Amino acid sequence: MIEYILGQAAVAVFAITGVLGAIRKDRDILGLVVLGVITAIGGGTLRDTILNTSVFWVQDFNYILVSIIASVLIFFLLKISKINEARYRMLLYFDALGVAYFCIQAFEKTINLGYSYPVALIMAMITGMGGGVMRDVLTGRPNLLITKELYASPALLGILLYILLKLNLPDSHIPSITAISFIFLFRSLAVYFHLQMPSWLVNKRENDQ
Amino acid sequence: MIEYILGQAAVAVFAITGVLGAIRKDRDILGLVVLGVITAIGGGTLRDTILNTSVFWVQDFNYILVSIIASVLIFFLLKISKINEARYRMLLYFDALGVAYFCIQAFEKTINLGYSYPVALIMAMITGMGGGVMRDVLTGRPNLLITKELYASPALLGILLYILLKLNLPDSHIPSITAISFIFLFRSLAVYFHLQMPSWLVNKRENDQ
Amino acid sequence: MIEYILGQAAVAVFAITGVLGAIRKDRDILGLVVLGVITAIGGGTLRDTILNTSVFWVQDFNYILVSIIASVLIFFLLKISKINEARYRMLLYFDALGVAYFCIQAFEKTINLGYSYPVALIMAMITGMGGGVMRDVLTGRPNLLITKELYASPALLGILLYILLKLNLPDSHIPSITAISFIFLFRSLAVYFHLQMPSWLVNKRENDQ
Repeated sequence: MIEYILGQAAVAVFAITGVLGAIRKDRDILGLVVLGVITAIGGGTLRDTILNTSVFWVQDFNYILVSIIASVLIFFLLKISKINEARYRMLLYFDALGVAYFCIQAFEKTINLGYSYPVALIMAMITGMGGGVMRDVLTGRPNLLITKELYASPALLGILLYILLKLNLPDSHIPSITAISFIFLFRSLAVYFHLQMPSWLVNKRENDQ
Repeated sequence: MIEYILGQAAVAVFAITGVLGAIRKDRDILGLVVLGVITAIGGGTLRDTILNTSVFWVQDFNYILVSIIASVLIFFLLKISKINEARYRMLLYFDALGVAYFCIQAFEKTINLGYSYPVALIMAMITGMGGGVMRDVLTGRPNLLITKELYASPALLGILLYILLKLNLPDSHIPSITAISFIFLFRSLAVYFHLQMPSWLVNKRENDQ
Repeated sequence: MIEYILGQAAVAVFAITGVLGAIRKDRDILGLVVLGVITAIGGGTLRDTILNTSVFWVQDFNYILVSIIASVLIFFLLKISKINEARYRMLLYFDALGVAYFCIQAFEKTINLGYSYPVALIMAMITGMGGGVMRDVLTGRPNLLITKELYASPALLGILLYILLKLNLPDSHIPSITAISFIFLFRSLAVYFHLQMPSWLVNKRENDQ
């Protein structure tokens, strides 16, 4: 039950980033809601399609409803609030939260469907980051995968942490809670302090094109 | 039979918008045809993939043939004609026509596969707008979802109108004909008169980013 | 066996183009590897999803491993090398090689699954160019489909050549080897000499937008 609520909350959070990413002068609520919904369910849809399993929101329409409601609420909140320059920052932190939850939940789902750890790892990355990448492409932003700060790394390390904990605590919720918190905090710190990888893992030369 | 012909016509119309959206100096016919085909079949392909059903053009290759032929014809028509500044306008009206037909036809298809009205509604939106969004992304245009004028609204209202009429006239063609005409005319008027939603449903503030 | 190795090599080659396309100052290895992997497996994933068959890398994880390794190696190679202005050229030739192999291999796979020649032709185009188009969209480049030089034509002609040869030499490897070489060489010559289609197949007028 609590997991179901958290899953819906993660969908809501991602929908909010879709609206935050797309809002500009003269854009109307319906176009923004559609983008919010795509962002919210895009990654999971990709995962289920690749796994050839029935798509989660076709089975349970509440995911769509929740992402619509979240998109509508943030639209009006942005209309009445004075927030302006903080919007992109908000997007980044909400995105971090959504990525954290979606990664771990998708990892568990894929394992439960009988796939190997490596396949589950890839599905976790697809689910966690797929919706955000779609949002960035559709709103014309450079996608977060090629952001200056760490983006894929917190997700990857968090999943590895989850595997490690799960091997020792197979029947506990501690692995998932720890891993989700880890991913969110690590990515948030990366955004806040502009953390980058050690320089030998970063391209430091000026490039053409 | 008439429905089959209309379906092929809608595919042709969408293919034309793909070519209209991508044509520039020095681009060749084959690249443009590929874009036309993607635009024409992209939305329906997405729908069938998400529904885990066999993709429509894999079953009936005529859809691909028709979109190829339409793309080739519009290429040569543009070559010999003097139309220039009207191209983007043409794209918008053709797009409106394709969206109208695809929405209603996808709604019916999804219902016939045994899904609920809400799922069919989402599938209608995906089918109607999916190909156009792919076209906009691939040709580097801001996608129509976040256009200033109404885009998703005519489709949504048209589908609701269809449901309403269908409840009263279950065995008639009137619901689909009315709804398709409604979507096309509403969107065309929105383009022509730059119609927007009531201002409380539109973001009117200047935004950062 | 040799075919398996060639398949992995083609995946590696496409992964390299993903990194070459995305590398800029301050981008880190993990984001670039993710883009490399998407480029490498994107086209085939699309094909298998549309055919409603099990996705190739879910069945055999080596494809992912190879694309990760290739992406990591090219990252460090670019770090220590002085190559700069040649990067985009390298991308184009590697892309040509990947397209050539993927087209023919996807054509054969689709035929073996029992589909008709026209469906196999479309699947070959999707597999050959899908990953590259995703790379271009995700890295914010104009996609190669609408490049000035011939892109889709070598692939299309190569597949037609393959069909022709296969009808006469059904049990030989000559058709595939010839067609792959043909596509690669034709596209490479197009890049090197800026070959275009005959001008009646190219849009030569200045256009609006």
